[in-house]
Amino acid sequence: MHAYRTHNCAQLSAENVGDSVRLSGWIHRKRDHGGVLFIDLRDHYGMTQIVADEDSPALSVLEKLRLESVVTIDGEVKARTPETVNKDLPTGAIEVFARSITVQSASEELPMPVAGEQEYPEDVRLKYRFLDLRRETLHTNLMKRTRIVADLRQRMNAIGFNEFSTPILTASSPEGARDFLVPSRIHAGKFYALPQAPQIYKQLLMVSGFDRYFQIAPCFRDEDPRADRLPGEFYQLDLEMSFVTQEEVWDTMEPVIAGTFETFAEGKHVTPAGEFPRIPYAEAMIKYGTDKPDLRNPLIISDVTSHFEKSGFGLFEKIVGGGGRVRVIPAPNTHEKSRKFFDDMNDWARKEGFAGLGYVTRKGGEFGGPIAKNHGPERMAELYAELGLGENDGLFFAASKEADAAKLAGAARTRVGEILELIDTNRFAFAWIVDFPFYEYDEDEKKVDFSHNPFSMPQGGMEALETQDPLTIKAYQYDLVCNGFELASGSIRNHKPETMVKAFELVGLSQADVERDFGGMYRAFQYGAPPHGGMAAGVDRIVMLLCGAQNLREITLFPMNQKAEDLLMGAPSPAEPKSLRELHLRVIEPPKEQK
Amino acid sequence: MHAYRTHNCAQLSAENVGDSVRLSGWIHRKRDHGGVLFIDLRDHYGMTQIVADEDSPALSVLEKLRLESVVTIDGEVKARTPETVNKDLPTGAIEVFARSITVQSASEELPMPVAGEQEYPEDVRLKYRFLDLRRETLHTNLMKRTRIVADLRQRMNAIGFNEFSTPILTASSPEGARDFLVPSRIHAGKFYALPQAPQIYKQLLMVSGFDRYFQIAPCFRDEDPRADRLPGEFYQLDLEMSFVTQEEVWDTMEPVIAGTFETFAEGKHVTPAGEFPRIPYAEAMIKYGTDKPDLRNPLIISDVTSHFEKSGFGLFEKIVGGGGRVRVIPAPNTHEKSRKFFDDMNDWARKEGFAGLGYVTRKGGEFGGPIAKNHGPERMAELYAELGLGENDGLFFAASKEADAAKLAGAARTRVGEILELIDTNRFAFAWIVDFPFYEYDEDEKKVDFSHNPFSMPQGGMEALETQDPLTIKAYQYDLVCNGFELASGSIRNHKPETMVKAFELVGLSQADVERDFGGMYRAFQYGAPPHGGMAAGVDRIVMLLCGAQNLREITLFPMNQKAEDLLMGAPSPAEPKSLRELHLRVIEPPKEQK
Repeated sequence: MHAYRTHNCAQLSAENVGDSVRLSGWIHRKRDHGGVLFIDLRDHYGMTQIVADEDSPALSVLEKLRLESVVTIDGEVKARTPETVNKDLPTGAIEVFARSITVQSASEELPMPVAGEQEYPEDVRLKYRFLDLRRETLHTNLMKRTRIVADLRQRMNAIGFNEFSTPILTASSPEGARDFLVPSRIHAGKFYALPQAPQIYKQLLMVSGFDRYFQIAPCFRDEDPRADRLPGEFYQLDLEMSFVTQEEVWDTMEPVIAGTFETFAEGKHVTPAGEFPRIPYAEAMIKYGTDKPDLRNPLIISDVTSHFEKSGFGLFEKIVGGGGRVRVIPAPNTHEKSRKFFDDMNDWARKEGFAGLGYVTRKGGEFGGPIAKNHGPERMAELYAELGLGENDGLFFAASKEADAAKLAGAARTRVGEILELIDTNRFAFAWIVDFPFYEYDEDEKKVDFSHNPFSMPQGGMEALETQDPLTIKAYQYDLVCNGFELASGSIRNHKPETMVKAFELVGLSQADVERDFGGMYRAFQYGAPPHGGMAAGVDRIVMLLCGAQNLREITLFPMNQKAEDLLMGAPSPAEPKSLRELHLRVIEPPKEQK
Repeated sequence: MHAYRTHNCAQLSAENVGDSVRLSGWIHRKRDHGGVLFIDLRDHYGMTQIVADEDSPALSVLEKLRLESVVTIDGEVKARTPETVNKDLPTGAIEVFARSITVQSASEELPMPVAGEQEYPEDVRLKYRFLDLRRETLHTNLMKRTRIVADLRQRMNAIGFNEFSTPILTASSPEGARDFLVPSRIHAGKFYALPQAPQIYKQLLMVSGFDRYFQIAPCFRDEDPRADRLPGEFYQLDLEMSFVTQEEVWDTMEPVIAGTFETFAEGKHVTPAGEFPRIPYAEAMIKYGTDKPDLRNPLIISDVTSHFEKSGFGLFEKIVGGGGRVRVIPAPNTHEKSRKFFDDMNDWARKEGFAGLGYVTRKGGEFGGPIAKNHGPERMAELYAELGLGENDGLFFAASKEADAAKLAGAARTRVGEILELIDTNRFAFAWIVDFPFYEYDEDEKKVDFSHNPFSMPQGGMEALETQDPLTIKAYQYDLVCNGFELASGSIRNHKPETMVKAFELVGLSQADVERDFGGMYRAFQYGAPPHGGMAAGVDRIVMLLCGAQNLREITLFPMNQKAEDLLMGAPSPAEPKSLRELHLRVIEPPKEQK
């Protein structure tokens, strides 16, 4: 007989009644029914009820053991009485009568419970992560995570992508966020950097002649902790293809993403592969007020600026006259809503830092509110007709400079959708946002800068860079969004060295800068580079959506806390003086803060 | 039509004759036959011959382009004349007559050739790795590597192992080699470490209740460069199982390892799963003189010490009297070998730093050499009979202190096997080396120390630790070897905190030391730890064996050089003063060396 188990804790059923079995696991729960002890024995796979009575030598041992002790039970499978059968449990038809017990590991008093899902302070959960991970939700989430990642890998392999691990000790990248640095022992004063993403390596792989690369890639950014970002490391499904157009990237990846979502969506509707809408950035900014639209929300924003060039509503006329925009968000079937609903929306907009959110109410065709009154009911009716709105639909107005109007309208669209319960939470609604601007105007630096990836190909290529207003150039740059989240970002890359130099020139960087900062890639492009492109999808975000988790820690094995500390392992920690000497480093203690 | 290709460069065959096609790729070779130009167009998948003559506008463009430029060719598939068909090439029956060409990327003059396999200096190859990777052998090796890794993953998934990525920014481990440190920006003077292996995390995963873990795990050691080790990072197939015996680990992993080897061995024989010999360490040290035996070598070492307790050969009698051992290596069918063969072996042994390698020759039953003479032919015949040696077999003698005798015998066994061409290079011969000693005597520190993994379970458990001479205690510790290389190492872990404390006590460390150095794991063991064990296999070594590569750089995508520099990306490099300030660090320049 196996030293520890003949079956796992999810295997036994009515068919095994009468069998002699051996099970090992954790004591999940104990119930003492006066001389008869019931134990829920738990392992990775499930739970089996163990019974011990005074005839069993196991009884006295089990009585003394604390919860979460690990035991091996030898016993006999018995059918439960009909009234005690648990149909929710795969092993619910049987119980194992314990004949003998071996204690593998007795537990001390627990700092936090494992059974049940009661809330527990974050620091205790992280310090005792090995207990936290035994809890049902976290264990289930992490298993789902590993299955999702395996599924993504399998799908990528199946369509001819090859996984390569790119270096983790590499060069610092001057673009993007802050790098983690790793001091070199052999080269005094020099540092490696952990990659923020394998961007340059994957492009080099294409230049090296590999056709389809992917990687579940660890990425590292030394950024200040934020609620939606764990300190330290995160994972991307990173991929790149040679000789592709952006349409081919989308066509290739829709079946992968939709396939994985369908596998793990537990019945929720997923936008079918081949049907992901492809929405130009400029259109998304008008219709949804954001480049991360939640398409589960049926509300569509419209630009009605032209209606207010001349209006009895002087405020809008003034905004429009000053170059601003008027955007409207429908609030369908709100004829029964009180004034308070509309006024609360306005208050909310002010709290969010906007000047306010105007509105028109409508009940049985009759308009209400100051905008309608001043603009005039006939012209409002005209506007409503143009927007296809009905006689019981309200309308919210975001009027401001374009960027602010879009932002407010987008936020109001979400809020109205939520309050009116228009968002179908039973869906994963995907879309590609495409044609991002290549450049943007950096208000802080008062100069043109790259709006996304500087390595993207500008639409129109060299000619566009030489002849167009930079702020009108679009890039072959795209995002994949789902339910209001950015799941992935990608582009067709600029593989032409002269176009690359020109693109950087327009943000004020010289060819020498490019050669210094991106020497490996710039050099590679001199010796035959294929047109190529790809994308990177956030594994953590995909897992969060599919687990329905709100917090990254609920889908991460051993996360650090918000202070970037690993409470379980005790990292970071002071280095030995010998190590610092070897690394040619001295620590400069920061000045003590005044109390 | 697709923007870049209707087919890849390996797809077209006689069936396509007459088709209009579009191909993209690199200009691999050009042959100018006076007005007719032949191009080998290469992509990831293969090669297709392109033809352009004076009727084609592509001719003048192609003539000017350098090798390795990337082009898109529109043309027509034509059958080759029978005498020009190339049967070695999948596309060898056809060629594509170029109608037009688009230059995607013109190459500069190449710093090293891509076509052909001519040797090139390492620093050029590393700086222009993107060219090096286009070369046939390296490209093939890297593709084989990615397929091997995918195959291992698939096999592990298929038998219920779940892949988890463990943290890369973690705590420094006081055991083992030197860590790479990563300074914390948020915590002045504190450092993370990159993991040397996910050892502690995988054990924590078992304590967290996950049953079967694996990972293709990046590992990091800041060790001085060595020929058989790349600076920086390497990959392990890391795995761990709960509620297992060591036999179950072996039984589980043999099909995985043998399966992957069979898939990629290209016809070489692989020890079948279920038939890996399991050789105790002590036996391996006698029979093969090493714990990494090459079982393709049929020679077996024997200990013949007892024959020389009293011997006319005074040197051996003296060695044996002083506690030394006499080990013999057969040299079968060496009756035709000259004296020089035997004397050269002795010279070789001296060059390797040993006192010498004795020998007996035999031809038609007649012994030769001083050992035989002094020991006497009758007693030699007795010895030969006991060893089952024949009348034309020679015998080498390694006599010394036990460790030296084993080492010399092992090296001589390999050398004799090589010279006599006894090693079947058409095999992958696997074995488990088991029952390693738990402790060893550290001659430098003059104390008992762990011989392998301090986290292994000693055989006999607490009782052995309390009652046995530490140096006689064996561990549930095993290696997997293949063809003389250690492929993997593993153990059943010590999951009992009190046994762990006792085990460390015997090497002079206190419970406080254990709590300080291994706090996370020690704490975990207090709260219900399952018996568990596993192993880690070197991915790089597996790939090297299956590629028949001699150098790690031939199977690694972007390796550093032996000075731990990435010549392609330019790492390591000086940090910005701002970065150093943020990290609370100052660089101490080492004193300049005198010239």
